[in-house]
Amino acid sequence: MSDRQMPPAHPFDFDAVDADKLHEECGVFGVNGVTDAANFVALGLHALQHRGQEAGGIVSYHPEHGFNSARRFGYVRDNFTRASLMETLPGELAIGHVRYSTAGSKGAAIRDVQPFFGEFSMGGAAIAHNGNITNADALRRELIERGSIFQSSSDSECIIHLMARSLQRDIPARMEDALRRVEGAFSVVAMTRTKLIGVRDPLGVRPLVLGKLADDGYVLSSETCALDIIGAEFVREIEPGEMVVISGGKVESRRPFRAQASKFCIFEHVYFSRPDSIIGGRSVYETRRQIGVELAREAPVEADLVCPVPDSGTPAAIGFAHESGIPYGMGIIRNQYMGRTFIEPTEQIRNMGVRLKLNVNRALIRGKRVILVDDSVVRGTTSRKIKEMILDAGAAEVHFRIASPPTAWPCFYGVDTPQREKLLAATMSEEEMREHLGVDSLKFISLDGLYRAVGASEEGRNNKCPQYCDACFSGEYPVEPADMIEKGFKLKTAAE
Amino acid sequence: MSDRQMPPAHPFDFDAVDADKLHEECGVFGVNGVTDAANFVALGLHALQHRGQEAGGIVSYHPEHGFNSARRFGYVRDNFTRASLMETLPGELAIGHVRYSTAGSKGAAIRDVQPFFGEFSMGGAAIAHNGNITNADALRRELIERGSIFQSSSDSECIIHLMARSLQRDIPARMEDALRRVEGAFSVVAMTRTKLIGVRDPLGVRPLVLGKLADDGYVLSSETCALDIIGAEFVREIEPGEMVVISGGKVESRRPFRAQASKFCIFEHVYFSRPDSIIGGRSVYETRRQIGVELAREAPVEADLVCPVPDSGTPAAIGFAHESGIPYGMGIIRNQYMGRTFIEPTEQIRNMGVRLKLNVNRALIRGKRVILVDDSVVRGTTSRKIKEMILDAGAAEVHFRIASPPTAWPCFYGVDTPQREKLLAATMSEEEMREHLGVDSLKFISLDGLYRAVGASEEGRNNKCPQYCDACFSGEYPVEPADMIEKGFKLKTAAE
Amino acid sequence: MSDRQMPPAHPFDFDAVDADKLHEECGVFGVNGVTDAANFVALGLHALQHRGQEAGGIVSYHPEHGFNSARRFGYVRDNFTRASLMETLPGELAIGHVRYSTAGSKGAAIRDVQPFFGEFSMGGAAIAHNGNITNADALRRELIERGSIFQSSSDSECIIHLMARSLQRDIPARMEDALRRVEGAFSVVAMTRTKLIGVRDPLGVRPLVLGKLADDGYVLSSETCALDIIGAEFVREIEPGEMVVISGGKVESRRPFRAQASKFCIFEHVYFSRPDSIIGGRSVYETRRQIGVELAREAPVEADLVCPVPDSGTPAAIGFAHESGIPYGMGIIRNQYMGRTFIEPTEQIRNMGVRLKLNVNRALIRGKRVILVDDSVVRGTTSRKIKEMILDAGAAEVHFRIASPPTAWPCFYGVDTPQREKLLAATMSEEEMREHLGVDSLKFISLDGLYRAVGASEEGRNNKCPQYCDACFSGEYPVEPADMIEKGFKLKTAAE
Amino acid sequence: MSDRQMPPAHPFDFDAVDADKLHEECGVFGVNGVTDAANFVALGLHALQHRGQEAGGIVSYHPEHGFNSARRFGYVRDNFTRASLMETLPGELAIGHVRYSTAGSKGAAIRDVQPFFGEFSMGGAAIAHNGNITNADALRRELIERGSIFQSSSDSECIIHLMARSLQRDIPARMEDALRRVEGAFSVVAMTRTKLIGVRDPLGVRPLVLGKLADDGYVLSSETCALDIIGAEFVREIEPGEMVVISGGKVESRRPFRAQASKFCIFEHVYFSRPDSIIGGRSVYETRRQIGVELAREAPVEADLVCPVPDSGTPAAIGFAHESGIPYGMGIIRNQYMGRTFIEPTEQIRNMGVRLKLNVNRALIRGKRVILVDDSVVRGTTSRKIKEMILDAGAAEVHFRIASPPTAWPCFYGVDTPQREKLLAATMSEEEMREHLGVDSLKFISLDGLYRAVGASEEGRNNKCPQYCDACFSGEYPVEPADMIEKGFKLKTAAE
Repeated sequence: MSDRQMPPAHPFDFDAVDADKLHEECGVFGVNGVTDAANFVALGLHALQHRGQEAGGIVSYHPEHGFNSARRFGYVRDNFTRASLMETLPGELAIGHVRYSTAGSKGAAIRDVQPFFGEFSMGGAAIAHNGNITNADALRRELIERGSIFQSSSDSECIIHLMARSLQRDIPARMEDALRRVEGAFSVVAMTRTKLIGVRDPLGVRPLVLGKLADDGYVLSSETCALDIIGAEFVREIEPGEMVVISGGKVESRRPFRAQASKFCIFEHVYFSRPDSIIGGRSVYETRRQIGVELAREAPVEADLVCPVPDSGTPAAIGFAHESGIPYGMGIIRNQYMGRTFIEPTEQIRNMGVRLKLNVNRALIRGKRVILVDDSVVRGTTSRKIKEMILDAGAAEVHFRIASPPTAWPCFYGVDTPQREKLLAATMSEEEMREHLGVDSLKFISLDGLYRAVGASEEGRNNKCPQYCDACFSGEYPVEPADMIEKGFKLKTAAE
Repeated sequence: MSDRQMPPAHPFDFDAVDADKLHEECGVFGVNGVTDAANFVALGLHALQHRGQEAGGIVSYHPEHGFNSARRFGYVRDNFTRASLMETLPGELAIGHVRYSTAGSKGAAIRDVQPFFGEFSMGGAAIAHNGNITNADALRRELIERGSIFQSSSDSECIIHLMARSLQRDIPARMEDALRRVEGAFSVVAMTRTKLIGVRDPLGVRPLVLGKLADDGYVLSSETCALDIIGAEFVREIEPGEMVVISGGKVESRRPFRAQASKFCIFEHVYFSRPDSIIGGRSVYETRRQIGVELAREAPVEADLVCPVPDSGTPAAIGFAHESGIPYGMGIIRNQYMGRTFIEPTEQIRNMGVRLKLNVNRALIRGKRVILVDDSVVRGTTSRKIKEMILDAGAAEVHFRIASPPTAWPCFYGVDTPQREKLLAATMSEEEMREHLGVDSLKFISLDGLYRAVGASEEGRNNKCPQYCDACFSGEYPVEPADMIEKGFKLKTAAE
Repeated sequence: MSDRQMPPAHPFDFDAVDADKLHEECGVFGVNGVTDAANFVALGLHALQHRGQEAGGIVSYHPEHGFNSARRFGYVRDNFTRASLMETLPGELAIGHVRYSTAGSKGAAIRDVQPFFGEFSMGGAAIAHNGNITNADALRRELIERGSIFQSSSDSECIIHLMARSLQRDIPARMEDALRRVEGAFSVVAMTRTKLIGVRDPLGVRPLVLGKLADDGYVLSSETCALDIIGAEFVREIEPGEMVVISGGKVESRRPFRAQASKFCIFEHVYFSRPDSIIGGRSVYETRRQIGVELAREAPVEADLVCPVPDSGTPAAIGFAHESGIPYGMGIIRNQYMGRTFIEPTEQIRNMGVRLKLNVNRALIRGKRVILVDDSVVRGTTSRKIKEMILDAGAAEVHFRIASPPTAWPCFYGVDTPQREKLLAATMSEEEMREHLGVDSLKFISLDGLYRAVGASEEGRNNKCPQYCDACFSGEYPVEPADMIEKGFKLKTAAE
Repeated sequence: MSDRQMPPAHPFDFDAVDADKLHEECGVFGVNGVTDAANFVALGLHALQHRGQEAGGIVSYHPEHGFNSARRFGYVRDNFTRASLMETLPGELAIGHVRYSTAGSKGAAIRDVQPFFGEFSMGGAAIAHNGNITNADALRRELIERGSIFQSSSDSECIIHLMARSLQRDIPARMEDALRRVEGAFSVVAMTRTKLIGVRDPLGVRPLVLGKLADDGYVLSSETCALDIIGAEFVREIEPGEMVVISGGKVESRRPFRAQASKFCIFEHVYFSRPDSIIGGRSVYETRRQIGVELAREAPVEADLVCPVPDSGTPAAIGFAHESGIPYGMGIIRNQYMGRTFIEPTEQIRNMGVRLKLNVNRALIRGKRVILVDDSVVRGTTSRKIKEMILDAGAAEVHFRIASPPTAWPCFYGVDTPQREKLLAATMSEEEMREHLGVDSLKFISLDGLYRAVGASEEGRNNKCPQYCDACFSGEYPVEPADMIEKGFKLKTAAE
């Protein structure tokens, strides 16, 4: 049932630049041990807004006022900064979530916005989930058969129903029970009346970090950039397969799952995470810059200007320019006043596409051989339009350099990807793509080059047991996508 | 958990006139077999708005678009008349609900607005409930213990969870299962993908009627006035303990409950129902007028003017004037532009009370002996203020005549009543009340007189087996209010 | 220029009952000498809401914060009761205005909402005007020619521009200058930084009364009912052609115009004013009841039930029933939850018409000979629909009795009337109207009967010099409607 | 009078980064000869949004529907992209305006949002003004004395009143009359029913360019970047002192003013204009990059990293890095989800300041000697906070390099500047500023260096007759700021 408590948030998303990217679905954040914890969560979610712009939610707990919740469509800064709303979220313990809607759900509903809450006989619990449960359809069928009533279309709701049905007598134990039934990728932040809880799936596909505030306050966050905004100290990453239960200034570490080799999402380095976050002890900015350096080594070309496709291509372009010695310049200017979508737009706005967001710096481009550095090519629609704008402005040559390998497979672990057929690299060779885009040259970084740039190893990818999840490039899925296979998705064959 | 998806609808309800009335909690309406069924439901709910002004909801089903739902705070006419909203509710089958918030729930939440929906393995179902479940607390505890997750604070949600856990293979049978577990008063309208269902509890405390449209369309409604607005023909009342399952132009009648003597709420005649509705073959207006006639016989007084307290006292005042021969006149004028509450009112508005809604027709009142006819006295706060206004305007005498017996006991069957201690008649004798109100005389209709007026019998009330539920007057509760007794409510003792 | 700062308030007004009435355009209210004067104005405007439901505005003055203004579409109670808005209107001096949009202006604009404000070299002034300026077009042309820039399409704006151009050195004197140029009907409430000012045109077509609060507070109001709500004492009516300048607890009376015989609007008695207001020392309710008495004498008929068309026909119906001895009963029930219009309604709502607001009390009507008492017949569209509903309910006969003479001429003095061709009585005889409406009999009160009922004289109308403006009935316009004649309106000829 | 038709848009502006910049007040745009001209204006205003984010307005003219106007607070993209609003602005001729509120006006009012409209005897006209009228106070006093009623607190409204009072028989001639009375800086775009008009003041302080669409369509815009977005061809700049009257595909050029040496605002090059605009035949990006080059020559320093303060310092930082050979890197990351202000923010949000928008890329900064390149220092508050963030992140040294000379004087020509006392450079020497900011070195580009970078001359500034208006740096005001002098502002003395 689609409960249209709000007008459909996005009649359509024609924002061509962002639409032609992969999208992280979520960011999670939780804090305890501070007055007005919800305010800290709001700031943390603001810093994680790049992980999900559609909607956000916060749940807090206060001994007198109980659990309170607020969920809103739109940016954190437009909702969760208002005193009148934040006053309704009292307490020293709170968690929150920002989300990007998945391709599957048409017509967003506030019911689908996390955190999800359940009242159990021993008290309430709220959860916020980043990732994707690959056996959610089967779990949902089973739970409905046994009498559970689902309120949303979200895969994440399975977790709270599994918890409700667990026979364990305390909530963290129920959560262990529940998550052992769940397959796929999950970084979960949860709360009870007294505890802040964080868990990562056994492969550690999605990130989750622990931070510390003064006194006994602790923080859980998808990325370190959200620790900076509230002045929290970065303690460490939650480990793959680890559950931390935080209460009274103590952090208890549990290991509910069988040990496995970790498979962190390599695309977090390429695009999802913010450049000022630290992953694996290393700045994401520096990794991206290094990708540019590798790319300049792997695919050099004679040219006059290295120009980033703003803003995500910028660090790699800086690295490319530095390594190649070709001058760096802002050949494309981004309009800072663009949000993500329009409500009920005019026909004309609908047809504007990229031009609403990007303009070419014609005087700089004219007559030059230009290297455009972008983070990835998904459908290729935006790349074509950018190329046209650059040529219209009088560029002599256009060379694309892409800071990731060809994206040829969909992600089933919490990233919104088009169907395989829509991915340019799934149906074309590199040369066909070059022709399709109509550029003078097109080069992607190699998978080994990417592994080198992220610091995995000097040799690159360990093909026997890859150090990262790179299914979107390699088609090798570390967890079988059960629901999708049931729906007809074909795994890579030995021949491919 | 209070999910504040909307600003608290009613920071407080200081609308003194209405606040000093008993309030029906709900109206229900359903229709099938017509194009755009939701539009019919909207009209029906508009006609039932007097049964619940806080919020309303509609669920519809369309073979292609599935179940859709919209729930809103505020009047039906302000929400469910807009084309843009109604377009989201397609289909030939729809049900709806208007609600008045109960005293217990502070801070209304859209989650509490019905209809409630559940997805079962054999398909979805939606229910709308008028009444109150007297063992809801116990049921909720049991359901939570077994893993159900409640989404609202409403007693009615128990029904859908009981249905979800039933082992029956079709939805009407699951509904029978569920309602056999439920105690109290319920008139329920429900729907599946193909069926429109109506049920009344074995005592038939709350009303529910069946209507017919052209072709194969059928209607279920709390009152007949909502049939008139859509041009439906009144067929008959659903009988106490009856379930009707309507599909394909057929009305199947079932009897899921053990037979019992019916106990229709007598206050529906006095105040809740609209005067143009028909109950038991008789116009509510005519019944009220007849109450006035009885009252004039039981409690005559010499006076110059019979004046209704608008608008609910009007029919009884007309009857009183007619029987007594004393001229009828509008001594109190009601401002038509008053809604129920104010958002964030100024101090001054907060203190205005009755004067915002009522003004005395001073020229008519001056020097006269005035009989004021009102439907009931609950707390007595408004009656005192009206008396003061009448005296300020120069009335020579003020005589109150009340069209119901003293309201001395709370209702637990779906009516919002103050705690017993707040009911004037629970703590004072009639003479004490007269003194408290400061009027020259105060008379209530007798219980027998009321029974005569509603046409129960010439003799009045059958005290051995009363023909109606009159617990609010008599303290004799036809269903034991189990949850309330657990919370400390004391039943009437033999001594009382 | 139509500055659409708000969505068009009324895409169309299909509310059939109200649409087939004449509409007063405005109510005005002002107060000084009290803390938070704007709160008093809000209450006064709420009591005057029946004079204009489209929009309202308040201007206040505070020595430190200067002049402040707020103008809003919608009911007073939905806007001017909020603390957050009222805090922006500080000071001890304030005026306000409610308006009904005139037929001519399509697409309401907030710019047209009064009070209007002008900054002069000696300080600011605000004005609120009830009535209509019959030479506004000519004045506007002249003012534009001389360099004035109009901000609204309102005739009332001429007044403030004439004041701006006056060479007088104080504002009341400028106002005298301005109003001497103006023709037509005007009751104006105005304010400067220190003075509250009230004026009525020489004929006194529109009402304006003076009230007194405790201490030195004074009130100006369109009607006395608005004095009651704030507890002000009624002092007297402002006289035709009088200007009062109130300051420091003193009321100075001026006479800026040449004396003329007064021509108060007789329709204020019939329909516009609230029944609890006092006009000419007499309750409007009592006058209307007396119209019913006269009507019963002039046009008796054998019947079983006297039934008002609610709510405006009620007092006359009470009088008719009393005089005729035929029982009074509520055969038509009004839905209390109807506002005036709908935003973007569904097709179905659009076609509902009268049934959204009125329902027949079928049990009461069936088999009866019914006398329907209504205040007036304008287009006749609603009367026809009501007759149909009554016959559908099984009435044996339907007799219309109308509490005013046939409305055959448009009003040009501040009342929204259809073009002459649309007035039923302009094109049909009484018998033709009866046939058109399809009723058993149709009778209007005579002009003399109406004059008797309002207490003008036992003989009725003084045809040589009528005691009232009755142009809508008689076609005798006390002020020549210059703009309308220029636009082609034909005055009554000697032959008519 | 402050007409609070909307809640005060900006209870306060604590957005520390932007608050410590100078702000352009306005952008103007107009187009004719295209269907749905208002849509083109919306796109143009979106591209000019950096010139004013508070509010925007559009006026269009259609032969049948007349002049229509819409004015809104907030971003163009949130208002003027909606089909339902744009449909209310039909026609082939339209102009628009975006505005930044001036420091002086507290409590923004929709009345102050341009374009302004006036109805004259020969038809209506609308104007949109970028700049500031330095004798507006005197003009307003005179106009009020003569009977004009002002509707806004804007200086620009004088122009339309002067036009209304002109005795000329056509509107362009009235506009010439009006503008000859006006002193200061003005780039005006205006429209009548048939003509699109553009004017620049004799000194040409603010920019205005002419563009051409296919067929007979013409465009006027503050900057060329807004031509790009609608695919218009850049024709030429409107010349200082020139008026163009565009109609029927013809551009007529007039010279209403006495010739003077031009004084274009040099700060447009430094900060106001978008980097992809062309001024004087040269890309603004290239000029800024060149400023960085000059700065590296004038003020070299040994360091490890050149880091821009995003985003305005970026081009100069690229130039500095290139010239100095020191690596360029993004040491500060900007949160893309920040708007300008918050409505009713929590205490915590209020105190966050720069951290809501900027975060340090700690891994890149740690241990490095960092050169921070920013465009200007106004109050210095943000510079101090950024320095602290950089040091907290472990930078070894911090060197500020500023892409403009010290800002020591307020602008009176349409830029929002703090009072002189608040400008850091007005009260401190360069060394005092360095100490105040607490950095290792602080250097501003020289005035001559800036003139070289903008391409004025190899020698730099012509001190006898400067090629630009540089009053904010030099204190030499090309037009006497009459109103400000009356209010007590002291011009630079010979001694200074």
